[in-house]
Amino acid sequence: MNLKSILPILDWLPNYKKDWLKGDISAGITVGVMLVPQGIAYAMIAGLPPIYGLYTALIPQIIYAIFGTSRQLSVGPVAMDSLIVASGVAALAEIGTQNFIEFAILLAFMMGVLQVAFGVFRLGFLVNFLSRPVISGFTSAAALIIGINQFKHLFGIDIGRSNKIQVLLKDTFSQIQDSNLITTTIGIISIIILVYLKKKFKKTPAALVVVVLGLLAVKLFNLDQFGVQIVGSVPEGLPSFKMPSFSKEIIINLAPVALTLSFVGFLEAVSVARAIETKHTEYKVVPNQELVALGLSNMIGSFFQSYPATGGFSRTAVNDQANAKTHLASLISASVIGLTLLFLTPVFYYLPKAVLAAIIIVAVFGLLDFRVPKQLLTYAKRDLVILNITLIITAMVGITEGIISGVLLSLGMLIYKSTKPHIAILGNVPNTHFYRNRKRFKDVIIHENILIVRFDAQLHFANTSYFKNKLQEFCRYKGSKLKFLIIDGESFNSLDSSALFALNEIYTYFKDRQVQLAFTGLKGPVRDKMVKSGLMKKIGEEYFFMSVQDAVDYYETGLKEDTKFYKYTNQANE
Amino acid sequence: MNLKSILPILDWLPNYKKDWLKGDISAGITVGVMLVPQGIAYAMIAGLPPIYGLYTALIPQIIYAIFGTSRQLSVGPVAMDSLIVASGVAALAEIGTQNFIEFAILLAFMMGVLQVAFGVFRLGFLVNFLSRPVISGFTSAAALIIGINQFKHLFGIDIGRSNKIQVLLKDTFSQIQDSNLITTTIGIISIIILVYLKKKFKKTPAALVVVVLGLLAVKLFNLDQFGVQIVGSVPEGLPSFKMPSFSKEIIINLAPVALTLSFVGFLEAVSVARAIETKHTEYKVVPNQELVALGLSNMIGSFFQSYPATGGFSRTAVNDQANAKTHLASLISASVIGLTLLFLTPVFYYLPKAVLAAIIIVAVFGLLDFRVPKQLLTYAKRDLVILNITLIITAMVGITEGIISGVLLSLGMLIYKSTKPHIAILGNVPNTHFYRNRKRFKDVIIHENILIVRFDAQLHFANTSYFKNKLQEFCRYKGSKLKFLIIDGESFNSLDSSALFALNEIYTYFKDRQVQLAFTGLKGPVRDKMVKSGLMKKIGEEYFFMSVQDAVDYYETGLKEDTKFYKYTNQANE
Repeated sequence: MNLKSILPILDWLPNYKKDWLKGDISAGITVGVMLVPQGIAYAMIAGLPPIYGLYTALIPQIIYAIFGTSRQLSVGPVAMDSLIVASGVAALAEIGTQNFIEFAILLAFMMGVLQVAFGVFRLGFLVNFLSRPVISGFTSAAALIIGINQFKHLFGIDIGRSNKIQVLLKDTFSQIQDSNLITTTIGIISIIILVYLKKKFKKTPAALVVVVLGLLAVKLFNLDQFGVQIVGSVPEGLPSFKMPSFSKEIIINLAPVALTLSFVGFLEAVSVARAIETKHTEYKVVPNQELVALGLSNMIGSFFQSYPATGGFSRTAVNDQANAKTHLASLISASVIGLTLLFLTPVFYYLPKAVLAAIIIVAVFGLLDFRVPKQLLTYAKRDLVILNITLIITAMVGITEGIISGVLLSLGMLIYKSTKPHIAILGNVPNTHFYRNRKRFKDVIIHENILIVRFDAQLHFANTSYFKNKLQEFCRYKGSKLKFLIIDGESFNSLDSSALFALNEIYTYFKDRQVQLAFTGLKGPVRDKMVKSGLMKKIGEEYFFMSVQDAVDYYETGLKEDTKFYKYTNQANE
Repeated sequence: MNLKSILPILDWLPNYKKDWLKGDISAGITVGVMLVPQGIAYAMIAGLPPIYGLYTALIPQIIYAIFGTSRQLSVGPVAMDSLIVASGVAALAEIGTQNFIEFAILLAFMMGVLQVAFGVFRLGFLVNFLSRPVISGFTSAAALIIGINQFKHLFGIDIGRSNKIQVLLKDTFSQIQDSNLITTTIGIISIIILVYLKKKFKKTPAALVVVVLGLLAVKLFNLDQFGVQIVGSVPEGLPSFKMPSFSKEIIINLAPVALTLSFVGFLEAVSVARAIETKHTEYKVVPNQELVALGLSNMIGSFFQSYPATGGFSRTAVNDQANAKTHLASLISASVIGLTLLFLTPVFYYLPKAVLAAIIIVAVFGLLDFRVPKQLLTYAKRDLVILNITLIITAMVGITEGIISGVLLSLGMLIYKSTKPHIAILGNVPNTHFYRNRKRFKDVIIHENILIVRFDAQLHFANTSYFKNKLQEFCRYKGSKLKFLIIDGESFNSLDSSALFALNEIYTYFKDRQVQLAFTGLKGPVRDKMVKSGLMKKIGEEYFFMSVQDAVDYYETGLKEDTKFYKYTNQANE
C-alpha cells in the first residue's frame, strides 16, 4: 500500500493533462447547476431546512475529490439516503426542530466513522451479498415511497411523512379533495416540462428551467398568497465549523440507522462508480478505498453541518456524459454551490415546493425498475420471488427490514438449492470419449456393469446425506450387475470434513457390495483433501483417472492405459 | 404412500420369520435389563423421581414398535434429552415439585406434536444442516455437562444443577472437601467395575452388576445411615392414563425447549438408526416417518406420564449386537420394564445414587469425541474451529445456543468460501487433449492468444463481482495479445439471475476489447438458463464447445471440427 492508494489525488493532480480541462469545467458547471435545486429538494425529503442540502453538496464533494478512486462520482445529498435520514431521525425528534437537525448531522458523522472502519477492515466485499433482484426490488420500493411522500407538496395537502406505502396512500386518498388547485397545476406542469425536456432536449438542465419558471410564476402572480407553499428564506453564507453534538443515548438509538446508511450509501456509490468505470481505462475503483473516501466525506462534512451524503446515480451519469475527466469537475461543482451559498440563496425565497416535488418525483420514478422483473419472469422465477418480497417488505415495513429480508432470503435460497443439487447419470456419446446426462440425451450408451454419476454441487455437510441416499438408490436400481461406480468429480469444487466422512462411508458401502469406487476429473483442492485425509490411499491410488473414458477403459481392459497421467490424477499440495 | 409406509408394523409382523425369534428374545431381555438402571439414572439427570424413567421406557417403546422404520432402534429415556429437560424446566419450576414433573410431561407432549408436524410437512431434511463438526462438538460438550453434573452424587456433596460447565466446576471444587468418603468409595469402585467389565466382558450387563453390588453393600452394612444417598421408595404399578396439564403460559415458555428437544431427539435417533441400517438390507430408515413415529411415541407416552424420549445410542447398539431382527425385541424389553414396574420397584429402595452416577459418567464419557477433532486437525482446520466454538458455547452458555451457533457458523463458512472460490488458469497437458491448472502443473502449455479460465463454484450473486474482477485482472495481465477467452464451465452447477447479468457484462467487456468469449463443458441446467435468457444467442451459438480442446482447435483452424456435437453443446430443456 503506497501513498497514492490512500490519497488518489496524488495520482491524478500531478499528471493532469491540459486537454482534460474543457471537459472538467463544463461538467463541473453542469453538475453544480443541477445540484442546487437537487440539494434543496433532497433536504426537503430528509425533513431538513433547504440550506442543509446545499451544505451537504459542498464539503463532502471536496473531501471525496481528495480520497476517492472514481473520477466521475458526484458525492452529495441523494434521495434514498435522505429518506432513510427522515424515517430514522423522526423516531427521536420532531421534524423541523433544532434537535432533528442536530441528530441528522450526528448521523452523518456516525455513518462516516462506520464507513471508514469498514474500509480499513476491508469489509467492502459485504456489498456483494446484495443480489440484483434485491437491489431492484429495494430501489423500486424506495422510489415509490420517496415519490409518494412528495404528493403532499405536489397537491398542497397536509399529510404526515411515513415510510410505509399503505399509510401514505391511505392518507393521500383521504385528503385529496382538500388539494390546492394552483399548487397542483404548478406541480403537474412542472412534471410535464421535466419529462418533455428529458426526452427531447437531454442536454438542457431541466430542473433549472422549472425552478426559474416556478420562481417567476409565484413572484409575478403573488401565488404564495393563494396557498402555494414556498421554500421561504434560506440563510446566506458558507457553513461554519461546528462540532456535532454527541450524546451517548442518541448515538445508541441512531446506530442501526447509521449502519443501514453506511451500507446503502456505499452500495449506491459503488454501483454507479463501477458502471462508469467500465468506460474508462485510466483508473480503477477500489471498493475499500471508496468506503474510506465516502466515510471521510461524511465525517468531515458533519463538522460543517452536512447530513449523510453519498455518490448519486443521476448526477454521476450527467458528470460523465458532460466529459468530466478528473475530480477537478467535482471541485468546480463545489464552487458553484459555494457561490450560490454566498450570493444566491435569497433568490429561492419564492420557489414553490410543488416544483421541487415535481423534480423529485420525475427523478425517482425513473428509478422504478420494470426491466429486471420482466427478465426474471422468463428465466429466473425464484429470483422474481426474492425481488417481490424485498419490494413489498421495503415498501410496507421499512427500508432496513426490506434489505435484510432480501439478503437472508437470497442466502437461504442459495443454501436450499445446494442441499438438493442436480445429479446426473452419465452415458457415452456414441463414437466419442464424451459422457453426458442420459436424461437429456437419449442416445447415450449405458454400460450394464458401470454406474457413472455426476453430482452438480460442492459436496458439503448439508448435502452429503442426499448424495449418499441417491447413490444407494441408483445402486439398488442397477442391481447386482453393478461392479464399478465412477464418480465424475468435475463438479466437486471442494470437500469439507463432512464430505470426506461421507465419501469414506460411500466407499465402505460399495466395497461391502463388491462394487469398486473410482474418481475422475478431481480438481486440485479436492485432491489435496483426499490425500491429506488418507482417503485416496484407502480407495486405491490407481482408481483416480483423468477422464471418465480412462476409467471405463480401465474397467474393460483391467489396465491403466498409461501411467504417465499419475502425476496429474494424484497430485496434491501440502 | 401406502398403509405399510404409515404403519411399518404391517410390513414386518405378517412376514415374521421363525428364525428371527431367538435373536429378538435375547436382545429384548438384554436391553430390558439394561434399561431399568438406565431409566432410573436418566430420570435423575432430568431432575425427576426414578419411576418416571421407567414409565418413559414403557409406552414410547411400544408405540415406536408400531410406527418406526428402524427395526433395532431402542426408544426410551436418553441422557442428552434428560439434561435438556432439566435445564429447560428448571427455569419454570423448582426441581422435585409436582409442577416440575407436570411440565416435563407436557414437554414430551409438545415435543411429540412438533415432531409429528415436522414429519408430515417433510422437514426431516433440516437435520442435514447439522454437520459432523457441530455434532461432535455438541456431543462432547453435552457429555461433559451431564458427567460433571453427576459429581454431586459421586462425591455426596450438595451442589446445584447447572448447564454451564464453569459454574459446575467452580461449585464442585469449592465443595469437594465436604465429600462423603463412603459415597465416593462406592462411586469410584463402581466406575472401575464398569470400565473393567466393558473392556474384558463385553456381554455382561455391567450396569446390572454394579446395581446389585451397590444394593447389597448398602443393605448389608446399613451404609444409608452413614450419609450415603439412596434412591428411596419407588412406587409400584404401571402408569395410569392421565391428561397432561395444559396451560397457555407454560406452553409458550416451554416452546423453545420443545423445539430443541424435537430436533436433538430426532438427530440422535436418526443418526444411530442410519448407522445400524447400513448393516441390514431388509428395511430402510425413512427420516420423515421416523419423525412421525418418535412424535407419536412422545405424544401418546405423555398421556402415561412419560417425559421426552428418543432412540438412544448405546441401547440401540446393544440391541443390534444381541441380534434383534424386528420390533418384537422392543416389545419384549417393554415387557421387562412392565414386570419391573409391577413387582420389582421396592428392590431399588437401597440403591445408592453414587452407583447411578457412576453408570451415567461411564456412559457419557464414552461419548467424548477425540477422534473427529484429531482428524480435522490434519485436514480441515476450519471445521475444527467450528467444532471448538460449538463445544465451548454448548458447555459454557447453553445447549440450544451451542447448536444454533454451530449451524450458523457452518452456513456462514459455506457462504464465505463460495464468495471467493478457487479459480484456475488452464494450460494444455503436452501431447494430450487435457487441460489443467498451470499453478499446479508447471509443464502445461499456455497459448499466448488464448486465456482458459475455470471458476470453481456455482456462479451466484455473492461471487459474480469476484469473478468479473478476476477475469479483468487476467485480461490486463495477458495484454493486447489476448483474442480468445474460454470459460471452462464444468464447475458452474447452476446460474442465478445475477450470474446471467454478470456473464452478459463480461461478454460486453471483452467484446469491446476484441476478445471473443467461448464456453465449454456447460451442464444441462446451465445451458437451460443461457438459452432462456437469450445469452447463448447473444454470444453466438457456435462458441459453445464440448471440450476445451474443441474450442482451442476452433480458434486455431477457424472451423468447428464437426457439427455433430451441436445437439450436445447447445441442448436445453424448456
